[in-house]
Amino acid sequence: MIQPLLKLYKKNSILSSISAVLNWDQETYMPRGAADFRATQGAFLAEMAHELVTSDRFRGCLSEHVDLATGAIDPGITSPVDTANLKLAYREWVHANRVSKDWVVAMAETTSKAQLIWADARATNHFASFAPILESLIQLTAQRADAVGYVHEPYDALLDDHEPGMTTQYVSQLFAHLRPILRAIIDRTAGRSVPLLPTGPFSIDRQERISHDLLRRIGFDVSRGRLDRSTHPFSTSFHPTDCRITTRFSDTDIMENISSTLHEGGHALYEQGIPEAWFGQPVGTSISLGVHESQSRLWENIIGKSIPFWQTYLPILSTEFSEFADMSTHSFVAAINPVMPTCIRVSADEVTYNLHISVRFQIEQALFSRQLAVRDLPSAWNELMRSELGVVPATDREGVLQDVHWACGGFGYFPTYTIGNLMAAQFIEAAAHQIPRWSDHMAAGDWIPLTQWLNTAIHQKGRSVTSDELMRQVTGRSLDVSAFERYLNQKF
Amino acid sequence: MIQPLLKLYKKNSILSSISAVLNWDQETYMPRGAADFRATQGAFLAEMAHELVTSDRFRGCLSEHVDLATGAIDPGITSPVDTANLKLAYREWVHANRVSKDWVVAMAETTSKAQLIWADARATNHFASFAPILESLIQLTAQRADAVGYVHEPYDALLDDHEPGMTTQYVSQLFAHLRPILRAIIDRTAGRSVPLLPTGPFSIDRQERISHDLLRRIGFDVSRGRLDRSTHPFSTSFHPTDCRITTRFSDTDIMENISSTLHEGGHALYEQGIPEAWFGQPVGTSISLGVHESQSRLWENIIGKSIPFWQTYLPILSTEFSEFADMSTHSFVAAINPVMPTCIRVSADEVTYNLHISVRFQIEQALFSRQLAVRDLPSAWNELMRSELGVVPATDREGVLQDVHWACGGFGYFPTYTIGNLMAAQFIEAAAHQIPRWSDHMAAGDWIPLTQWLNTAIHQKGRSVTSDELMRQVTGRSLDVSAFERYLNQKF
Repeated sequence: MIQPLLKLYKKNSILSSISAVLNWDQETYMPRGAADFRATQGAFLAEMAHELVTSDRFRGCLSEHVDLATGAIDPGITSPVDTANLKLAYREWVHANRVSKDWVVAMAETTSKAQLIWADARATNHFASFAPILESLIQLTAQRADAVGYVHEPYDALLDDHEPGMTTQYVSQLFAHLRPILRAIIDRTAGRSVPLLPTGPFSIDRQERISHDLLRRIGFDVSRGRLDRSTHPFSTSFHPTDCRITTRFSDTDIMENISSTLHEGGHALYEQGIPEAWFGQPVGTSISLGVHESQSRLWENIIGKSIPFWQTYLPILSTEFSEFADMSTHSFVAAINPVMPTCIRVSADEVTYNLHISVRFQIEQALFSRQLAVRDLPSAWNELMRSELGVVPATDREGVLQDVHWACGGFGYFPTYTIGNLMAAQFIEAAAHQIPRWSDHMAAGDWIPLTQWLNTAIHQKGRSVTSDELMRQVTGRSLDVSAFERYLNQKF
Repeated sequence: MIQPLLKLYKKNSILSSISAVLNWDQETYMPRGAADFRATQGAFLAEMAHELVTSDRFRGCLSEHVDLATGAIDPGITSPVDTANLKLAYREWVHANRVSKDWVVAMAETTSKAQLIWADARATNHFASFAPILESLIQLTAQRADAVGYVHEPYDALLDDHEPGMTTQYVSQLFAHLRPILRAIIDRTAGRSVPLLPTGPFSIDRQERISHDLLRRIGFDVSRGRLDRSTHPFSTSFHPTDCRITTRFSDTDIMENISSTLHEGGHALYEQGIPEAWFGQPVGTSISLGVHESQSRLWENIIGKSIPFWQTYLPILSTEFSEFADMSTHSFVAAINPVMPTCIRVSADEVTYNLHISVRFQIEQALFSRQLAVRDLPSAWNELMRSELGVVPATDREGVLQDVHWACGGFGYFPTYTIGNLMAAQFIEAAAHQIPRWSDHMAAGDWIPLTQWLNTAIHQKGRSVTSDELMRQVTGRSLDVSAFERYLNQKF
């Protein structure tokens, strides 16, 4: 019986869920003047969670079933779910015990402040005002990497945080495989003319109706979640009964909201699909950020930018916005799928997107191997943009300051986006093979069979399997670039 | 140095502030399906706060300065603020130690569920479905009253929770004084014809602009607070930098939103005015619910339903809603000030409102002295409505089910509304006397001098004085009905 451990662990999960509510509020509705106090609240909760996992009681409960020196699980534990729970709890215990409470509080307070400083620096295009707190965040993160340990280099520890098992070497190889594939497509499509989309103005109220309609069609349960607006779209989950997403609207670009809604909706379907009964157990969460991104990108790109999708949805969009009534599906889909190197990651196409990630990966690796100093970041960024994408941002705002991730302490996070793209392509191949009458459903715009398949194949498993186990169970093989290569080459 | 105690107490305040964020979210944006889990989160925080105040460490810090058996403060403490902090911390410690952790968890979970059950029962006009959980709440509350102790009867303990020092006998006498005054006004005004207000429809967007304009004019700092919508308007504060209010809109009744905004805005000015440096100390909160209500009612009624106010504001309202352009100030003010016994407390006029409170006071007292059973509540309610107000609700929805307070465990809360009315009248007499050029400011629609006076006289004091000390400091005498009597008789 691992119940005492699970009972204690559940408190940890509730603390996390409360932090998540505070973060959601911070990004959606919190008044600006409340930022300092919100940082105090966040640090308080982080400290409590750390106290709990490093407590004698937690150690005691864990040691009943796990050899704390080696991580070996008591051979008497036979249930695979219990085994997974113990492995995950042990990993968390080890990580927590290797950092001090002071570190936890400093990290919580620094990230909270850094997000505001970053937002100001970005608004005023002034990297120098962000540099000092970024430096602090890098130092704090490097301290943790040293404390937690790593295979070859500190950056391995950061990758492992977001995608357990992932290493710098592995990601380097992945990009080595991907780069020529992506370059070939960019070269092949260069100079192709792309139809222009109507540019509105599109009423925000009508766009909001579209968002809710899309969410309903993909199976998002609105009684267990909601949609709001924020500067940067995101998804968060407090519990399978409360999964929230945000979107943003442009009155000139209709795809801004549609892409965000499908992307965040994909994340939310994952969280709503994790077994409620597992809430509070280590297995009761998502597997990794890579798997999470596979769910969002599958809906945003593979489904949401496909011809079958728009065969169904363009007529619906046209009922709200008559300017689309005269466009053919092929010309609409061509318009939303240009391949075009630009400076901004979030608006990049499916091909060049991964080169944006490659830039960030190389920058992060260089920062944590001390080969790059913070003050040299803007020039290193621009240089890599030139070599990877052939474009150079005119300002830091469109360059090194564009993403919030580092301000949140999210180093080693970016590579999971490309991992997610690869996984999504591999999942869709499996889905098309396994779902009866797949093409009929897609042609009819009935996406619920796909949601149900994802639910059974992926969401319902929570974190009871590793990401590699999941790939092998669902697709019959470990992650590789082949499915993504086939997908891109067929599409472009 | 009482620093160690204050440091520990601050954790308690942060826990409360986090609970308040969760409650705000529950009332504004939380999806319906999340209710059970929100109850789990709330109970968890309540349990933690209880553990903290009943911990050996808290006891130890407190006993350094207070005799735990008698409550006597160490004579070495000379600062009035420290003395107040110690008295308040001791009171909280005594109260917390007299109930068990199980009670705290049960109460948190029961109130969280009860609010949803009440909302359903009210919507379907079905008291019987609310009765069982109401019975549980009364039992839990009675257990606490017995444990905490009281002067003469259990209900004294509940009154004391919301308005320290208030007793059943005191409130009874108050209503004995008030009743004939109120009745005389009702008799005197009966049959007076009241002008009719335009009934819209009023655009919600324009009403929202009015709300924000009103808040700005009374000095609400929007960088440290916000306005949302909820079924029942309320105000909440997480910290002086994050004070939030809600309102509701009717598209036919322009005063619904204006009254709510001014009422909740008055609460928020109080919370925004409490010294930030005192956050986390016992003195760093409001004094009592009565004082809180005095602030909301002063703005809602005494200012917001007065002739000088509408001399300034009717032209402004008319720029958004031209249907008011032809009304005279006197006829508008007469229209919003009918004296008319009705069944609904929240829409009652300033005179009959207090009779609604008298009904609830008598009901609560009867419930907690075991003279009234829950199953007999609807008939007792209707009988008291007939004798106090001369009207009988047609349904329980317009009767005993109309208020959320009991579902929140708020027994002994209602009398603070009448206390607040009395205090507000007493404060305004003092303000008119003390603020230079009072009539000029009012005539010019400049309400900031009043906000500043309230801030200095009341808000800035936090809870460093008792409510009786406050009354005497600000108005020169303890609370009585005379100012309210003068105010009503002059107005009606």
